[in-house]
Amino acid sequence: MWKVVSLILPLVMLCAQGASGKEEQEAQHVGHVSVVIVGGTGDLAKKYLWQGFFQLYINEVSSGYTFSFYGGGLSPEAKATPALFEILKGVSCPEDVPVEQCALLKEQFLRLSKYWQLKTTEEYLALAKHIDQELKEEGMKEAGRLFYLSVPAFAYADVADKINSSCRPVSGAWLRVVFEKPFGHDFGSAQTLSTQLRNSLKEEEMYRIDHYLGKQVVSKILPFRKENKKFLDPIWNTHHIERVEIVLKETLDVKGRIPFYDQYGAIRDVLQNHLTEVMTLLTMRVPQNLSGSEVLQNKLQIFSSLYPLGRHQAVIGQYQAYNAEVQKELNKTKDYHSFTPTFAAVIAHIDMAQYDGLPIIVTSGKMLDERVGYARVLFKNDVFCIQNSDNIHCKRKQIVFYFGHGSLQHPAILVTKNLFKPSLIDSDWKEVTQHKDVDILGLPVSDYYIQAPKVERDAYAELISQFFAGRKDSFISTENLLASWGLWTPLLDSLAQSYPRIYPGGVDNGNLLDFHLKGKELKYASEAVVMIMPDKLQGSTTDNYHVMQGKFRSADMVSAWAEELVEQLAVDLQAAAEAALNEGGVFHLALSGGSSPLALFQRLAQHHFSFPWRDTHLWMVDERCVPLTEQESNFHNLHNLLLQRIRIPYYNIHPMPVQLNQRLCVEEDGGALLYEKEITQLVNGSSFHFVILGVGYDGHTASLFPGGKVDGHADSLVVLTESTIKPHQRMSLTLKAINRAHNVALLVMGKGKHEVITQLSRVKDDLNKWPVTGVHPTNGRLVWYIDYDALLG
Amino acid sequence: MWKVVSLILPLVMLCAQGASGKEEQEAQHVGHVSVVIVGGTGDLAKKYLWQGFFQLYINEVSSGYTFSFYGGGLSPEAKATPALFEILKGVSCPEDVPVEQCALLKEQFLRLSKYWQLKTTEEYLALAKHIDQELKEEGMKEAGRLFYLSVPAFAYADVADKINSSCRPVSGAWLRVVFEKPFGHDFGSAQTLSTQLRNSLKEEEMYRIDHYLGKQVVSKILPFRKENKKFLDPIWNTHHIERVEIVLKETLDVKGRIPFYDQYGAIRDVLQNHLTEVMTLLTMRVPQNLSGSEVLQNKLQIFSSLYPLGRHQAVIGQYQAYNAEVQKELNKTKDYHSFTPTFAAVIAHIDMAQYDGLPIIVTSGKMLDERVGYARVLFKNDVFCIQNSDNIHCKRKQIVFYFGHGSLQHPAILVTKNLFKPSLIDSDWKEVTQHKDVDILGLPVSDYYIQAPKVERDAYAELISQFFAGRKDSFISTENLLASWGLWTPLLDSLAQSYPRIYPGGVDNGNLLDFHLKGKELKYASEAVVMIMPDKLQGSTTDNYHVMQGKFRSADMVSAWAEELVEQLAVDLQAAAEAALNEGGVFHLALSGGSSPLALFQRLAQHHFSFPWRDTHLWMVDERCVPLTEQESNFHNLHNLLLQRIRIPYYNIHPMPVQLNQRLCVEEDGGALLYEKEITQLVNGSSFHFVILGVGYDGHTASLFPGGKVDGHADSLVVLTESTIKPHQRMSLTLKAINRAHNVALLVMGKGKHEVITQLSRVKDDLNKWPVTGVHPTNGRLVWYIDYDALLG
Repeated sequence: MWKVVSLILPLVMLCAQGASGKEEQEAQHVGHVSVVIVGGTGDLAKKYLWQGFFQLYINEVSSGYTFSFYGGGLSPEAKATPALFEILKGVSCPEDVPVEQCALLKEQFLRLSKYWQLKTTEEYLALAKHIDQELKEEGMKEAGRLFYLSVPAFAYADVADKINSSCRPVSGAWLRVVFEKPFGHDFGSAQTLSTQLRNSLKEEEMYRIDHYLGKQVVSKILPFRKENKKFLDPIWNTHHIERVEIVLKETLDVKGRIPFYDQYGAIRDVLQNHLTEVMTLLTMRVPQNLSGSEVLQNKLQIFSSLYPLGRHQAVIGQYQAYNAEVQKELNKTKDYHSFTPTFAAVIAHIDMAQYDGLPIIVTSGKMLDERVGYARVLFKNDVFCIQNSDNIHCKRKQIVFYFGHGSLQHPAILVTKNLFKPSLIDSDWKEVTQHKDVDILGLPVSDYYIQAPKVERDAYAELISQFFAGRKDSFISTENLLASWGLWTPLLDSLAQSYPRIYPGGVDNGNLLDFHLKGKELKYASEAVVMIMPDKLQGSTTDNYHVMQGKFRSADMVSAWAEELVEQLAVDLQAAAEAALNEGGVFHLALSGGSSPLALFQRLAQHHFSFPWRDTHLWMVDERCVPLTEQESNFHNLHNLLLQRIRIPYYNIHPMPVQLNQRLCVEEDGGALLYEKEITQLVNGSSFHFVILGVGYDGHTASLFPGGKVDGHADSLVVLTESTIKPHQRMSLTLKAINRAHNVALLVMGKGKHEVITQLSRVKDDLNKWPVTGVHPTNGRLVWYIDYDALLG
Repeated sequence: MWKVVSLILPLVMLCAQGASGKEEQEAQHVGHVSVVIVGGTGDLAKKYLWQGFFQLYINEVSSGYTFSFYGGGLSPEAKATPALFEILKGVSCPEDVPVEQCALLKEQFLRLSKYWQLKTTEEYLALAKHIDQELKEEGMKEAGRLFYLSVPAFAYADVADKINSSCRPVSGAWLRVVFEKPFGHDFGSAQTLSTQLRNSLKEEEMYRIDHYLGKQVVSKILPFRKENKKFLDPIWNTHHIERVEIVLKETLDVKGRIPFYDQYGAIRDVLQNHLTEVMTLLTMRVPQNLSGSEVLQNKLQIFSSLYPLGRHQAVIGQYQAYNAEVQKELNKTKDYHSFTPTFAAVIAHIDMAQYDGLPIIVTSGKMLDERVGYARVLFKNDVFCIQNSDNIHCKRKQIVFYFGHGSLQHPAILVTKNLFKPSLIDSDWKEVTQHKDVDILGLPVSDYYIQAPKVERDAYAELISQFFAGRKDSFISTENLLASWGLWTPLLDSLAQSYPRIYPGGVDNGNLLDFHLKGKELKYASEAVVMIMPDKLQGSTTDNYHVMQGKFRSADMVSAWAEELVEQLAVDLQAAAEAALNEGGVFHLALSGGSSPLALFQRLAQHHFSFPWRDTHLWMVDERCVPLTEQESNFHNLHNLLLQRIRIPYYNIHPMPVQLNQRLCVEEDGGALLYEKEITQLVNGSSFHFVILGVGYDGHTASLFPGGKVDGHADSLVVLTESTIKPHQRMSLTLKAINRAHNVALLVMGKGKHEVITQLSRVKDDLNKWPVTGVHPTNGRLVWYIDYDALLG
């Protein structure tokens, strides 16, 4: 049925990465390849896939490979075959293939293609038998089988299972199964789907497509960075980059696609996948080998370095007509309201010195004023022009990866002429010097060096050549997929009940969707909200309460919602620090472990930039007897959330010596005494300026537990204690040390603490039963910071 | 002769700070004040001083003080008196004083004023006697004596001496002596002058004027910052500010003033004093009390936090006609060339977390395109506008302290409306809402909230009221003066033989003086230099040599000028780090003490932002047996120059345990063994990836000294050693530890090392005599990095 095509056609290899991929591919033997598009008569197949495989065929026709192509589907052969051939007749050659050659290639391609019904296991088995038989008849060696799953995601597991059980290639040949998004709806569902697929397929057999990785400009981000390394290395960091913007603006609505779209929305549809991939390509360490596994590893490193995203890192919107479309397409009543955002903007930060503080803005929306996609790296203004001038060097500097559309109307990489003249990425790209007079992101096009692909190619054709070449790096690995969902899921959860700002759509949006960067947070710039949503919808209630002053256990109490409470404590702490500095030039602060102070550390690191860390000494209130580098260590949390983000002298950091002589908290090693000596030496009168404590469910504070003979510590400042919770062993300041402090803050947050707060409001002092009741600074001030959740339940 | 003026005039107190100063002044008793302007018929006195003292008189006429005014001079009384009265007749009242009152006040002022010849000690003594006598005659109590020295700086010491010996007030009354700049020519001369003055005057008696501190806008910088604290606190930091510019542009040349100017130039004339003062006011911690000593203390803190300035932090220029003017006015021949800059721009950075990485640009020049002075705080663009728009919130945000002239033509403080609406500073200021249509620093004036003084006042009048009120904070203390010269002198020294870029002057300068910020350095933006200077002048020779590869003691050698050499080592180090990370995920680096590595640390901190510190462990090659917090400690240098400027985990830092049990390097404490254990545990095979060593004049390396039985260390990785230089005791890696490393760099720099390099090129290996000759990595690579000074002498 197939013939080895022996014509040596003078074909231009259009895909450079396909070519470099071929080198890797030498490891796999040449032979016959069966391509099966499951869902081969569907929309995507019709629009992109067959054309893409035809392109592959043209590229590989003289490479020694032979091919057969199967369109798989649920319909019977008789019915579907004509439809398939209708599609196949539509494929076309690239411009540079002469007409006669094209006709010949097309004829061969059609001859090699066939419809195959693929519904039952038997039908998969039949296909496998058919392939085996043809292989035998033709005396050919099998190179591999490629299944492209162009079916709904719910069918993935089933199809993968059938491929695995009934349609694997002969041993020695490869199997590649290609999937399209969506890959789950959140971390949990993505994990479930991944587990299901792993029952049938090996990691190396799975190719998850993100078609953005096939876009010509996106696929050249790493090559561009590598090629221009000498220019970029000195400036590709937070000291030179002002910000990074990754933007996909669309003018269309989602009418007709609501049943799908309403479950996803802008973040799942575009940000979690396409724009996140672009972000990783822009920020990852450029690998030595651009087509190896290092690409995926370095990408993963970015994921592990991204700061968590929460609701303060995003703004969301919904175009005005959307809700009516939802009511109609989902058969909902007039009082139904969808929270699904059709617009979202998110600010991300990477916890790496290179990108410290650098805002990365990721945004996408439907029904905006124009259709355009780009990633822009905007550099800081590093020129001082003595005289006002239009000279190019007085203007902004930027590199724009232009995905397409917009005023330029084609993909391109643009570098402002005041930066550097970039090298041409490869021979398939050209310098563009002639251009119509348009503005690109605030500058006339003549201010840029521009390079663009000689021939525009579709992303699918690109990716088909990539997975044919086994280029895993152009696809989404399970690890990366889960890492991405790990990043986005908490944000999606936090936004689930937030209502989006309603926007009219198109140019009428005006400034309605503009947003501000506030430190590490985002906010809409304008206050005016077009309220289409009914008042019934619950708004944020936190704005209605302010910080409240009161008394608790005859001491002062400050109460507020969690966020305001933490900010109040941060403000009080800074005031105390400044007062201490004015007096004695130094501020001694002792911090507790546990969960409550973590929010305080983050607040201090991200909002209190003028905190006098240089003159602050940090001490531990208590520590778990584990190595300081372990997750469970109190110091470890302090280190990662605070110390790594501020500039504090090494000498001012005083972790508890829980590990001495390679062992943990052994009495004879004298760690507690060592710490006590350190305090006595450095802290005037052993009186910390500020001690921050928490309270446990059982009334413990520091690591002083009920029943722990807390009253027996009268002679020591630091002791070893035992907890009922693992890790059991602890080192802790004693009440004696705590009560010498100038200020003690007891921070209690969360509904889970309501019960203990209620109890504490009633009980008398009893330090062995309720150790926290022993906190009574002798000459200092005690303030309880209790959030509304803990106070009111 | 004088009369207590009893008229209660309805005078407006024009000077708010004068008013607040008066509260402080309550401590000093009311009484008679003698004002002596030494140089009372000179230019400055004529132009500003008498007018200023008349203003003081008006302000204080009903305060209970009485006055007498003396114009002092070298001429005999008969000759000078008419000249003085010519000047005095010229003084005028503020607009709001009615004409008749003004005439009365002026008449009284003239009656109270008198010329006095002040040349000899006898004449000072005579003045003192005269004052005493009049005091006695009138039965008045003396409040104080105020000498305003409007004489050349070389006369200061002499005049001060005469005042001290012959003209001090009666006990209980104050003495204030006011000086005008220049206060020295560099650190040394300023110190000498200060010492001379301190022989005659107490610190509290000296008032050094910087008239910029009397400018209405400059004097309101701190009040503005305090008044708007709640808006400014969150944004007054490097996270929000893009840069600070302090600019004084002049259109005039210095023709006729060359004998003075050519000795000073733009940096000494404007940057070292006026613009530096503005810089400190913008960046210092806002004191609780704006008129107390805290102002001076906080200012001093900024000086101590400023990064050193060197030639890479500045660009200089000279207007084209200047040199001919020099030749003419200084009687020089046609081949004489002055290096004095008439234009200078400098970039400063402050080593405080709050301002980390924030560029502060200070620039001034003669013969520029316009006359204007301002300080601008430009904020980062923190808005993302989804749609291009002229909306104010899409524009730049800035605060401008406008000293005067330029397009606005009056002093003002401007805040863009997208920032906040500032509070009015005080009742003497007004909001300006009507304005002609001009642009101020890139934005139409209507984009700003503007406040301006109701009445424009001269800086001298302001300062006269300040020193009358004893407001030391408005003047330059000796400490601050020396701190400022301490900052500027190294820069001036490094520029002494640099030739300035020649510029034509006026608008013709075009882009010639524009400059680039390159990290912490400045460079002219355009390459084209108008070369008027003859070729004979020696240019920088470093550009002619490049990095050279060679052999030294049969190992590889890299040689270059110091700066290039350090950069080469930094590059090699980063490459090694990246290679190590690719292999094992961690990089172990051991660093030496001594002076050579300091430049490397600085280079790494300031230029290698992508260095993988997070996965780098830092070890010490050697340490001095002093506490780690002391200046002499190797770790201390490493800490201040490197660790405080990078983000490296706490756990990755491994100082040598030279202090245990509160004592230093005691054998029994086992510090060396402790460090050895730490190495063995953490470093694979105890093989550091990179060890950086230096060489001493005596051939020592690490802390392995000649005669130190270096060959006896075969069993240890870490040992205690003895140096002949203090501090004697050391802890050091042994040759065994060094020779296990993968890479060893021997860094040798400076002419002082030429001799030891010459010797080392000849001697055979002898580790007891030349310990460095024992460096032979067993399986690693040794490279010598020797700069041309050390290599060629």
